[in-house]
Amino acid sequence: MNYEQIDYSVADGIATITLNRPEKLNAFTGVMMAEMIDAFDRIDADDAVRCVIVTGAGRAFCAGADLSAGAKTFDYDQRTDRPEKGGGAKTLTYDMEEARDGGGRLTLRIFRCLKPVIAAVNGAAVGVGSTMQLPMDIRLASESARFGFVFARRGIVPEAASSYFLPRVVGISQALEWCYSGRVFDAQEALKGGLVKEVVSADRLLARANELAREIADNTAPVSVALTRAMLWRGLGYSSPMDAHKVDSRAILSRGRSGDAKEGVTSFLEKRQPVYPDRVSGDMPDFFPWWEEERYA
Amino acid sequence: MNYEQIDYSVADGIATITLNRPEKLNAFTGVMMAEMIDAFDRIDADDAVRCVIVTGAGRAFCAGADLSAGAKTFDYDQRTDRPEKGGGAKTLTYDMEEARDGGGRLTLRIFRCLKPVIAAVNGAAVGVGSTMQLPMDIRLASESARFGFVFARRGIVPEAASSYFLPRVVGISQALEWCYSGRVFDAQEALKGGLVKEVVSADRLLARANELAREIADNTAPVSVALTRAMLWRGLGYSSPMDAHKVDSRAILSRGRSGDAKEGVTSFLEKRQPVYPDRVSGDMPDFFPWWEEERYA
Amino acid sequence: MNYEQIDYSVADGIATITLNRPEKLNAFTGVMMAEMIDAFDRIDADDAVRCVIVTGAGRAFCAGADLSAGAKTFDYDQRTDRPEKGGGAKTLTYDMEEARDGGGRLTLRIFRCLKPVIAAVNGAAVGVGSTMQLPMDIRLASESARFGFVFARRGIVPEAASSYFLPRVVGISQALEWCYSGRVFDAQEALKGGLVKEVVSADRLLARANELAREIADNTAPVSVALTRAMLWRGLGYSSPMDAHKVDSRAILSRGRSGDAKEGVTSFLEKRQPVYPDRVSGDMPDFFPWWEEERYA
Repeated sequence: MNYEQIDYSVADGIATITLNRPEKLNAFTGVMMAEMIDAFDRIDADDAVRCVIVTGAGRAFCAGADLSAGAKTFDYDQRTDRPEKGGGAKTLTYDMEEARDGGGRLTLRIFRCLKPVIAAVNGAAVGVGSTMQLPMDIRLASESARFGFVFARRGIVPEAASSYFLPRVVGISQALEWCYSGRVFDAQEALKGGLVKEVVSADRLLARANELAREIADNTAPVSVALTRAMLWRGLGYSSPMDAHKVDSRAILSRGRSGDAKEGVTSFLEKRQPVYPDRVSGDMPDFFPWWEEERYA
Repeated sequence: MNYEQIDYSVADGIATITLNRPEKLNAFTGVMMAEMIDAFDRIDADDAVRCVIVTGAGRAFCAGADLSAGAKTFDYDQRTDRPEKGGGAKTLTYDMEEARDGGGRLTLRIFRCLKPVIAAVNGAAVGVGSTMQLPMDIRLASESARFGFVFARRGIVPEAASSYFLPRVVGISQALEWCYSGRVFDAQEALKGGLVKEVVSADRLLARANELAREIADNTAPVSVALTRAMLWRGLGYSSPMDAHKVDSRAILSRGRSGDAKEGVTSFLEKRQPVYPDRVSGDMPDFFPWWEEERYA
Repeated sequence: MNYEQIDYSVADGIATITLNRPEKLNAFTGVMMAEMIDAFDRIDADDAVRCVIVTGAGRAFCAGADLSAGAKTFDYDQRTDRPEKGGGAKTLTYDMEEARDGGGRLTLRIFRCLKPVIAAVNGAAVGVGSTMQLPMDIRLASESARFGFVFARRGIVPEAASSYFLPRVVGISQALEWCYSGRVFDAQEALKGGLVKEVVSADRLLARANELAREIADNTAPVSVALTRAMLWRGLGYSSPMDAHKVDSRAILSRGRSGDAKEGVTSFLEKRQPVYPDRVSGDMPDFFPWWEEERYA
């Protein structure tokens, strides 16, 4: 795990990704994008990881795109340090038909993650620093967190598939208002607007994130949680409850036969902690994935 | 109405379905599923019913799947008492391609109901006891109500098309959090999370549900309400406002010509209670249903 | 701007549309519909307009359909004054296949607007007076505002594509409850239910609307805001984040090359007010619009 711009650690079933360019307020780069995608690949492949926490080193969460290239920052034709240098499975292209925004490559990867993801927002989260959080499941903010969908103040637009995620997370009116004004706002406004679940003191932030992760890790079946994540996020885009019914009918049938279900019911009846036999790496049902991969890749 | 596991009554235009296995905390069975579906068929066919209230007998609303089969509970190959024994229009199948979850058969039936449905949650509502409420329109909780999307603690997954309904009712973040942890939570948390409209004292619960039903029954046109229910629930799945516009343009044109519209405007101008002539059983417009039935059946 | 039933003015980059039949509580007519659509056409074509405020003259916002035709109000076959007399680009038709509800023609036009739209609800907003607000971005209410989705009390149904908009703006349960009962409710209930952003005193209403509009007009790039509006409203109907990613990748690439992005980043780094060079009238990217027009026309 020779990452340059993030830190990655696993303890007691919980992986923590720490954005780690504190001297640059963890500003987002192509390298950081590629390293985060790599970390999520690692997380999905590692049965020892049950939950993920994403936070930032130092006083910021992520200050957004690195503006050190000045006026050329978003002009990819003019940049010699453009993001694909950071690597990753695919290179970014700068052809209009094939364009792939770097923030979106990351958020789509998080969208496909098989473990719950908790954002622990420790400070400023601006631009992609805010939009990268949207496909995470739960957002916690410290009192010093700041958020900003500042794109219209930089002459660009909301990215990272946030036009899909933001209206669904906070409602269309709040989403528009934040994106129109491009204003930076504090943790209390984020709480009131439904962007974060809780505001906690800075010294409690990681403890609270771990507490939420712990509850999941200690009580639930990994395959159930992985299917739940895939089902609910994709269910959000379905046009009819029948689409959900077709998937969950298969899932209930196949998981109902599993050792996990036997252990889940038995441990509940015996009032003891469950020990689930199945693993995400090898025991996902045959019909998984049930969608066309391209839709979310 | 020789129901075994539910009670069904109609008074003053309001039907009440009472889950009625109090000694089993109204645990859900194939029989209960079939009887509830039958009751909703009856409700749609009976013009004397304007609204529906669903509640539980005794101290629980519905404690979820009946776990008396122990480790075999969700393993339908192993069960001799599997749900299709309860009857209903179709038998459940246990072939993976044709699988139909019993909770989903119920929620899709409620989804198609032509009368407003109010859940009066009098006690514990766990698993399918919670998910069956999601296609109901309004949820009221008594102070002793409890909710739980406990599937991941039983080694299974959210069912009853809840991956469609839950993120839309409470938002994706809250939906995920409740489903990941599988935690049972109280009425105040349900209120804060947007799952229920109001928390009332236990002795006020049915009175409050009837009050809401009464207001609808006394003031509104039955055909208007049936179309409104179909339009809004299906509108929730549309990908464009144009889809809604095409339907509501026809509905406005055809209902605008109706005796109901004449009575609605005239009674309003005369400041008197309306007496609407049209009936759901015979006066739904020609273009109803405007969707492919399979989408929601 | 020889409008009969609305007033239209532009000052300091902010257009104000005032519904102007105060003696009729600004009741909606075919003339008003056509004039509002014309005003939105003018707004999109005029680069001097950055934001739009919609309000009502006198004590009402809009009392709904003009009921002066009595029982014939919604029976378009019986009316000699039916709405197409008011003009507009297309005539309304009263054939069932081709029916186009007048409220929906207006809301779809507002949906396509390229500038942010703020409703300043100064008084009663009933029927189409409430539904016309739903594709507006932000709703502010004075303390004396009243709302009502009264259709089921008039024997008709929710119109103006509100079966698409309302469940997305306030959630399906609240949408259903308001439409079922047809009850008129006050500004505080609208606030609690998520229909309005803020309730302010009557004498502060327009000042507050202008303040929100001002912040957008003074700080953000017009092309960025126009794209943001189109992206978020359409993103709300997408079935997958990939759909958003395809659009925003192109938008980031093309706007990243723009003079607006250079000015946005430079002015931010120089801590000064930006002066964006690009204009909505001429500088929208080549891929705009990226949708089939019919979907939203």
